[in-house]
Amino acid sequence: MRRNLDGLLFPRSVAVIGATPVAGKIGNVVFTNVANFPGEVYAVNPKYQEIAGKPCFPSVLDLPKPVDLAVVVIPAEGVSQVLRECGKKGIKNAVVITAGFKECGPEGAKRERELVQIAEEYGLNVLGPNVLGLISTRVGLNATFAPKGALPGSIAFMSQSGAFCTSVLDWAWKEKLGFSHFVSLGNKAVLDESDFLAAFAEDPETKVIVAYLEGIKDGPRFMELARRISQEKPIVILKAGRAEAGARAVSSHTGTMAGSDHAYDTAFRQCGVIRARTVEELFDYAYILSRQPLPKGKRIGIVTNAGGAGVMAADAAEWEGLAVARLSESTLQALAGRLPPEAAIYNPVDIIGHATAEQYQAALELVLADPGVDLGVALSAPHPILRYADLARVVAEAKERFGKPIAVSFMAGELGEEAEEVLRRAGIPSFFDPARAVRALSALVKYAEIRARSRTPPPRFPVDLPKARKILKSAEEKGRVRLGLEAMELLSAYGIPVAKGGVAKTAEEARKIAEEIGKPVAIKILSPEITHKTEVGGVRLSVPPQEADRVAWELLNAFRKTFPGIPMDGVYVQEMLPPGREVILGMVRDPTFGPLLMFGLGGIYVEVLRDVAFGVAPLSREEAEEMVRLIRGAKLLLGVRGQPPVDLAGLVDLILRISQMSVENPEILELDLNPVMCYPERVVAVDVRMTIAEEER
Amino acid sequence: MRRNLDGLLFPRSVAVIGATPVAGKIGNVVFTNVANFPGEVYAVNPKYQEIAGKPCFPSVLDLPKPVDLAVVVIPAEGVSQVLRECGKKGIKNAVVITAGFKECGPEGAKRERELVQIAEEYGLNVLGPNVLGLISTRVGLNATFAPKGALPGSIAFMSQSGAFCTSVLDWAWKEKLGFSHFVSLGNKAVLDESDFLAAFAEDPETKVIVAYLEGIKDGPRFMELARRISQEKPIVILKAGRAEAGARAVSSHTGTMAGSDHAYDTAFRQCGVIRARTVEELFDYAYILSRQPLPKGKRIGIVTNAGGAGVMAADAAEWEGLAVARLSESTLQALAGRLPPEAAIYNPVDIIGHATAEQYQAALELVLADPGVDLGVALSAPHPILRYADLARVVAEAKERFGKPIAVSFMAGELGEEAEEVLRRAGIPSFFDPARAVRALSALVKYAEIRARSRTPPPRFPVDLPKARKILKSAEEKGRVRLGLEAMELLSAYGIPVAKGGVAKTAEEARKIAEEIGKPVAIKILSPEITHKTEVGGVRLSVPPQEADRVAWELLNAFRKTFPGIPMDGVYVQEMLPPGREVILGMVRDPTFGPLLMFGLGGIYVEVLRDVAFGVAPLSREEAEEMVRLIRGAKLLLGVRGQPPVDLAGLVDLILRISQMSVENPEILELDLNPVMCYPERVVAVDVRMTIAEEER
Repeated sequence: MRRNLDGLLFPRSVAVIGATPVAGKIGNVVFTNVANFPGEVYAVNPKYQEIAGKPCFPSVLDLPKPVDLAVVVIPAEGVSQVLRECGKKGIKNAVVITAGFKECGPEGAKRERELVQIAEEYGLNVLGPNVLGLISTRVGLNATFAPKGALPGSIAFMSQSGAFCTSVLDWAWKEKLGFSHFVSLGNKAVLDESDFLAAFAEDPETKVIVAYLEGIKDGPRFMELARRISQEKPIVILKAGRAEAGARAVSSHTGTMAGSDHAYDTAFRQCGVIRARTVEELFDYAYILSRQPLPKGKRIGIVTNAGGAGVMAADAAEWEGLAVARLSESTLQALAGRLPPEAAIYNPVDIIGHATAEQYQAALELVLADPGVDLGVALSAPHPILRYADLARVVAEAKERFGKPIAVSFMAGELGEEAEEVLRRAGIPSFFDPARAVRALSALVKYAEIRARSRTPPPRFPVDLPKARKILKSAEEKGRVRLGLEAMELLSAYGIPVAKGGVAKTAEEARKIAEEIGKPVAIKILSPEITHKTEVGGVRLSVPPQEADRVAWELLNAFRKTFPGIPMDGVYVQEMLPPGREVILGMVRDPTFGPLLMFGLGGIYVEVLRDVAFGVAPLSREEAEEMVRLIRGAKLLLGVRGQPPVDLAGLVDLILRISQMSVENPEILELDLNPVMCYPERVVAVDVRMTIAEEER
Repeated sequence: MRRNLDGLLFPRSVAVIGATPVAGKIGNVVFTNVANFPGEVYAVNPKYQEIAGKPCFPSVLDLPKPVDLAVVVIPAEGVSQVLRECGKKGIKNAVVITAGFKECGPEGAKRERELVQIAEEYGLNVLGPNVLGLISTRVGLNATFAPKGALPGSIAFMSQSGAFCTSVLDWAWKEKLGFSHFVSLGNKAVLDESDFLAAFAEDPETKVIVAYLEGIKDGPRFMELARRISQEKPIVILKAGRAEAGARAVSSHTGTMAGSDHAYDTAFRQCGVIRARTVEELFDYAYILSRQPLPKGKRIGIVTNAGGAGVMAADAAEWEGLAVARLSESTLQALAGRLPPEAAIYNPVDIIGHATAEQYQAALELVLADPGVDLGVALSAPHPILRYADLARVVAEAKERFGKPIAVSFMAGELGEEAEEVLRRAGIPSFFDPARAVRALSALVKYAEIRARSRTPPPRFPVDLPKARKILKSAEEKGRVRLGLEAMELLSAYGIPVAKGGVAKTAEEARKIAEEIGKPVAIKILSPEITHKTEVGGVRLSVPPQEADRVAWELLNAFRKTFPGIPMDGVYVQEMLPPGREVILGMVRDPTFGPLLMFGLGGIYVEVLRDVAFGVAPLSREEAEEMVRLIRGAKLLLGVRGQPPVDLAGLVDLILRISQMSVENPEILELDLNPVMCYPERVVAVDVRMTIAEEER
């Protein structure tokens, strides 16, 4: 649902329900903050007629008009009543600061469900409950209980943790970092990250969307939105709970059903979200993305007055995925002409210790003018001859003149302070550590790459859906939760090439199938209880067709003897395939994002080296290709040591068909195609295991 | 050579050669700094009789006594003369601040060689040339031209970059970070990092040794010293030039022959040096190591008033190799008794937003008292009820009381400033980002693990050294730079199990060898020019002994026809081995550290997945075992999927024998044993390639 949050983010009139003149109460702190709002401000509290010079009304219903935004700071018990009144009054937006809902046990959860119902009934946009509040510097509103507001800026920030909001506000004030919007998401009972993502996307003054999240409420909706919005403005997210231990903490914290971290990583990658690992990264990325142009490539030019710093920056460039630019001959000649002979003119350009601001200017301009340089970093150790304020101006001018991104590392303490204001005005980040400056720049490169991506719609193959539905329905009717080789037909219905073969209930049938195949076969026991067929001796290889009946009979007999009472569906008779490169393709259903596909090299590669890549379905062709390329051992498929490449188009096709199957058949909970044999001219699925939902879909 | 640097680091008398009263000159800046030294201070300058109230002498020879330390700031041309005079006068220590030596082309290099000769002649300890100087807060000496000195502290710092010294001094002043010694290493003409490592180790007031290096002058000496010293105090090094591009910058910067980064990484790991990646890590690690006790393990307890921050800390713990502690039942019960019901008592312990300093105290004490907790971190978002100064005192007391390391993340801006002084006095680092606090703590865990390591001396196997020498000498005499299978005998001389076989010059000899082997053999062409035998059709497999002469004859004939004029040594007749797990063991000679061994799984594992581990020889048994364990695919050797483990003792033995061979035969420049076949009961080398030095050893 597309919600209009204009009244929430750009209100013209605000009422604080629960405002009070009693110092120390939250209702007082919030109202004091809101009172500075340049639009209309009302208080609601039956005890007062006026608070701090603003009119106060006994109830929402008594307000002179339906305000754009109601800010609720009354005790939890009364929130439902107030929201109903908001609805009746025709108010469309509410921030429920009040805590005491889902985060506080069953009673609170019940209260929250009631809140959601009321919001639905009246079409209310409710932020919260259990939030610090919301700040819109765009309209001069601070509807929070934070002691300080936010400076204006072009970063829209939302956070699932209210405490983290408080932290960021205090810290941002010191760092002079500004925000367009600042939203505490709280319990996300009604409005969630996707709603604000959509709203922030439409605010022209918001350059970057930044979030701290512990979970995502509606994965597919978020992905759809983020996919589109990330093509217009950068989205940077710190998703906590990466580690298993961390994830445990999340679920005990806000009751969010945290999806597995692989799913988040994959979904973010696919929909163009830049994922920050730490708080430091989150705001370093946000700041530079909000203030700098995008580079055309990833080749960095480094200008320094200290060789060591240049080396550190070059190291950082390499591990952040940038390239140390190779300067053109003419640039090198020009540098040699302008710099003293001791200078190192090759990138990193070391203009040596006693370089002046003018020499920095000459070097920076030459380096940034080089068409082989996409972005720059200026490093500087203190020297008596150099004033950092001058250098800052030089860098700011160069950024302006060449339209290329630039960061600085003025490696100093107090000496560097004089430069801070100049750098801030120019939007140039500065860090003591050269590596951190380079890392910040890398966010621009990442985002430029995201912008350059193209994605075709996920293909939709013509498949035999009725047959697939029938197979699944029949398994369901039989109460079959796990399927094995008998599911090969399901693959066939989706046009996936499988090894020739079929189910035989009797020895005779086995021979018949083998003779149809017409060459030696594998005969495998079929039982819903046996997933590791080889381990229990349930597989016979290279059986000549004319012996298939005898071998099948032996296998069936042996099985009945060894595992009496275990259900058995006969045997699967399958063509023997020549050796090839084995891969595995699997799917699990992630609670947040839905079907999560896994691709990897088979056997020990997946078991020991865990060399796998993930993709959230439905996949585009580009995404399926990326899954293949992302594994470390991709070269083994692309051809190495004179081996021809495998049929990559066929492999990608297979991944896409499984993607489609996973989307169209939600009762398939898990799936393993293992192995899929890959040959230069084709790929063939040899075995499959599947778990389907036990109950209704 | 063990140098006594007491006179350099703890002088009682200092003379500044080149001191001047002329403001703005380096000789004036240095003398002004040195003049504050509480010991005896002299100036040397023929133009003056007194400078700033200190006596000035026309030359070093005129000084009333041989001072402990001469600080030289005269132009480069005069340095040799002055150093000679120092020597004659009986002065033992000099800091040559003057630049214009090796870093400035051939003329300077010549000057530097002269300096080295004079230092040798007179037994002078020379720091430099081309340095910022040296600070010893231990004796109150600032012999640098930096505008500010250093605060006293327990970190000894040395840096190969003088500019970086200036940066760090200015920054450290702002951060109030103190040093025991602060040394700019410059060109390292005489004294290098190893000399200062040894000297810092003996200073009882130095708790941590920290260095910024671009290269190491004497790798083996450094390793020997660091190995011993790292058992007494932590050594943290930022070695720049990790990346290829970075390394290029190093070599163009100070003329250091930078060894490959793998060698540095490996050598540091082996000798217990903690390697910092960035400047931020370098000083975060240094500070916490200088101020905090070592933990007994790596289990971290997290106390927070904000759930999100706890999750971030838990995430960071996981990726820094720490474990999120599991609290004991009694701790959980006690926490439940002391904290409000909304609190999360499981680690991370979330004592919720409005927690007071007293509640922090209760929670911290319970968590740190738990024997399952080795170290702690306290996180805190701002809340009106909490004063950060109070919380800082609580944390400081807890650190004192439980003797366990602790860091904090007070996630705030100005609100947190009131806590800074308390935290600094208690040696507790604080960062806005919880992940950075956890990363700092991880340095303590790393160092505790280094201290807990034991290393037996590298084994010395009884080998047939004369035979090995003879083989190498004979190859040398024949002008053979590359050796192939004919070097199998060399392996045998070192007791390395090799596949049975031998060199045959003729078809008859081939048959004889095959019949001795008594089962099918492989026959391989032997030529110094052919390293890829299989690719040129130079290998025949599974040849029955009675056909060995015919096959050998065919092979020899075919080779002569296809490659006329290429030298050929006959064929190698070798037993056929059953399939096994293939590994590769190689050696290259690193210019800094000497023989660098490489171990990995063979075939595509090494070629595509680059799954290898390194070790600098001579290796201890523990180090050889670690090489095997370090590869990602180690499980394939240790046994997986029901496969028995390979003969690990034999494999480690083989690595150790190659280590010994590499050390004892310096003319072996490079070496590949590929494959080595590994079986459950033995390992066998099947093929070898070797490059030996072309000229004298």
